[in-house]
Amino acid sequence: MKSGLTLFGYWRSSAVYRVRIALNLKGLEYRNLPVHLIENGGEQHKPEFRALNPQELIPVLQDGQRVIRQSLAIIEYLEESFAGPRLLPVDPRDRAHVRAIALAIACDIHPLNNLRVLQYLDRDLGVEPAGRDRWVQHWLSKGLSAIEALLSDDDVVGAYCHGDMPGLADAFLIPQIYNAQRFSVDMTPFPQLQKIYANCLVLPAFERAKPENQPDAPKP
Amino acid sequence: MKSGLTLFGYWRSSAVYRVRIALNLKGLEYRNLPVHLIENGGEQHKPEFRALNPQELIPVLQDGQRVIRQSLAIIEYLEESFAGPRLLPVDPRDRAHVRAIALAIACDIHPLNNLRVLQYLDRDLGVEPAGRDRWVQHWLSKGLSAIEALLSDDDVVGAYCHGDMPGLADAFLIPQIYNAQRFSVDMTPFPQLQKIYANCLVLPAFERAKPENQPDAPKP
Repeated sequence: MKSGLTLFGYWRSSAVYRVRIALNLKGLEYRNLPVHLIENGGEQHKPEFRALNPQELIPVLQDGQRVIRQSLAIIEYLEESFAGPRLLPVDPRDRAHVRAIALAIACDIHPLNNLRVLQYLDRDLGVEPAGRDRWVQHWLSKGLSAIEALLSDDDVVGAYCHGDMPGLADAFLIPQIYNAQRFSVDMTPFPQLQKIYANCLVLPAFERAKPENQPDAPKP
Repeated sequence: MKSGLTLFGYWRSSAVYRVRIALNLKGLEYRNLPVHLIENGGEQHKPEFRALNPQELIPVLQDGQRVIRQSLAIIEYLEESFAGPRLLPVDPRDRAHVRAIALAIACDIHPLNNLRVLQYLDRDLGVEPAGRDRWVQHWLSKGLSAIEALLSDDDVVGAYCHGDMPGLADAFLIPQIYNAQRFSVDMTPFPQLQKIYANCLVLPAFERAKPENQPDAPKP
């Protein structure tokens, strides 16, 4: 579906990857505006971008004059504003379950391992690379292990996080697993996560959202 | 309003504090079940509690047989399941704005400064107390400064985070400011935050939710 949506992002950011998946699942076209997080000291710190988001973080979604920040708020906005496949179930308890999976990733895994935090450990606290790797592995393994257990607390165990349609929780889970693989986390203790990952990756909405398929990804 | 709600929490946890505010704003009575985060090695790690939440984190809300985890998912659940004053505005853009403030706290400030992370910096990375204090101050100041700016990006600048009724964003902001004061963060650069904090604290819903007014708080 045509839309006036613009996504400010970066190919490798897992928070942006979530939003790309949601846009694709909803069947919404959008303009992709890359913000390079590393070159030129980080374009997210430039005044033009800070005017869009004082947090100096991506993603940011623009819908006409409206500026929406925070990946989960963006995805809930898409769900509330556009037709297309539902990203959240109907029952309030099921909605809460799906949101809890998303938040267990968005609050309890991802913020501990993102670029600015690893830079702070390195530059400000002088933590050695081995210590930083241990830190990343620790929060990833602990977090994914809890999510593997959370997934089982559901009457609707299906091909995806909740039931037989991919949705909000999958849009959070797949980028987090992609990240875990970058950091060589052993996924064998997480059979549910592996199954869902494999089921999602074959879908066009997830394939098109992949970091390496973005226009700003380095050419192989 | 009578309800079958039970809140598993801890007096000082700011994530639980959020949910207490939301329950009070909605006018919902609930049973308070304290989970001591420090004594006995942390009751959140006990098998009985892990059966409720494999993340070993509070809050957890029980509504009859339903178990809801993650403070934001719990508050959205309350909003979707119960009557009472609205915690979120009606317009999708305004809802996104309010959620973005909540998430800027829930994802980008709180997870970096909670107990388990400070324990890891200390015990596993051997970061000195001065370094940990710098870490806490850094993420708090950076985060609150962004939220001060985010608040201004709103047509409805009122007595609270959005308009003239306290709601979801305030339920996240007040506990975070309470925390910042514990860590002696200088609040003078944040006049909007100070104003909203003062406006909220005088409301009974916020007063009753205060950490020191909880049954498991140490007696003065």
